[in-house]
Amino acid sequence: MIQINKSEFEKYERLYKINLINSCSGFKSANLIGTRSLEGCDNVAIFSSVIHLGSSPALLGFIMRPDTVPRNTLENIRATGSYTINHVSVNFYAAAHQTSAKYPENISEFEKTGLTPDFKNNFWAPFVKESPVQMAMKLVEEIPIKRNGTILVIGEILDIYFKEDILAKDGFLNLSKAEVVTINGLDGYCQPSLIERREYARPK
Amino acid sequence: MIQINKSEFEKYERLYKINLINSCSGFKSANLIGTRSLEGCDNVAIFSSVIHLGSSPALLGFIMRPDTVPRNTLENIRATGSYTINHVSVNFYAAAHQTSAKYPENISEFEKTGLTPDFKNNFWAPFVKESPVQMAMKLVEEIPIKRNGTILVIGEILDIYFKEDILAKDGFLNLSKAEVVTINGLDGYCQPSLIERREYARPK
Repeated sequence: MIQINKSEFEKYERLYKINLINSCSGFKSANLIGTRSLEGCDNVAIFSSVIHLGSSPALLGFIMRPDTVPRNTLENIRATGSYTINHVSVNFYAAAHQTSAKYPENISEFEKTGLTPDFKNNFWAPFVKESPVQMAMKLVEEIPIKRNGTILVIGEILDIYFKEDILAKDGFLNLSKAEVVTINGLDGYCQPSLIERREYARPK
Repeated sequence: MIQINKSEFEKYERLYKINLINSCSGFKSANLIGTRSLEGCDNVAIFSSVIHLGSSPALLGFIMRPDTVPRNTLENIRATGSYTINHVSVNFYAAAHQTSAKYPENISEFEKTGLTPDFKNNFWAPFVKESPVQMAMKLVEEIPIKRNGTILVIGEILDIYFKEDILAKDGFLNLSKAEVVTINGLDGYCQPSLIERREYARPK
C-alpha cells in the first residue's frame, strides 16, 4: 500500500489534489438538481453530494459551494423554497455532466444539454423527464460549514416519482434496475449492479 | 411513473418507509469507521453517509444518529479526536454489514466479524486491514442538525493509504479497480464498474 500524508498531498498541484481527495469518500450519488427563478428561468445542475439525513421526517441534504459553478441553484432555492432532485441514469449521464459547464445565468442548461424539463402537479421547479427517480423538495434549512465556506442545504421530500418496476415489496427502490449511475471522484461515471441485499444484522 | 406524496409515505409502516426513503438519495458510499476508546477497546462500524466536503483543506463528513447503533463510534471520536475511514470492497462486504449488529459496548466488532484491526504509524485508531483505501482522520467539528437530532461529524484527512495500481496519472483513485462497493438503501450492496471519465465540461 502507498501512504500519502497531509503535508505531502497539500503540496500537490491543484487538479491532482482535487482528483485524489474527491475519490476518498467512496462512491457518490449522481443527481440533477432542478430549479426555476422567480422570473421563470430554469436551471439544472449535477451534484454528487446528495445524502440521506433521515426518514421521519424524510430529509435529504447536499453540499453547496457558494463561490463555484452552480450558484443559480442556491439563489433559486432561496428565492422559491422549491427544487427537484433527479437520479442520473446511464442513458443521459453525458448530458448530466455537461450541466457543470459555466453557462451564463440567463441560459437554461436544459436547452444547452438536451435534457427535458418536466412540470408536474403545479410544482414550481422543473423535474428532469429522463430521470427514473424524481423528487419534489422543500427547503428546510441551510447550515453553514465555516471550516471551508460550504453550506449543507437540507430539504424535505414532498413527492417521489419512480418507475413502478423498481419498487420491491418492502419499499426498497432497486436503483440498479433503473440503471442509475454513481460517481467516482469528479468525473468517473460508474454503473453499479446489485450483488445482494443483506438481512438486518444481529449479534451471532 | 408512480407518484407517492408526503402525506402518503408518512403513513407507511416504519420499515417500509425506511427502505423507501433510504433509497431516495441515490447510491451511497460504503465505509467502515474504526475507533479505539481511551481504555483501548476497538470499535468498527459501517456507515453509508461519508461525503466529500472539500479538498483544501481535505475534509470528509458523515452523519451520526446519537440514539442508534454505532454510538461507541462517536464517543470514541470525541474522547480521542481520532478515527479511520476504510472503503468496503466485494471481498468483505458481508463482514462489514455485520458490524451494524448491536454488540455490547465492551465487545470489539473486529473479533465478532472477522475483520482485522491494523495499527499503523502510531495512529491511535485501528484501520481495517482488508480495506483497499484507508484514511487516518482527525476530528475537526461536530455540527448538530436540529431538525432531526442527527450530527454532521467533520474530519480532516491526515493520511491516505491505497493500493498502488488504482492511482491514475492525474491523482484519480479508480475505486472500481479496487472492487469498492456502493450501497443502495439500507442493505443493498452493489458493485460499480467504470463506464468512463468525462472531460471537464465547458459551454459548447
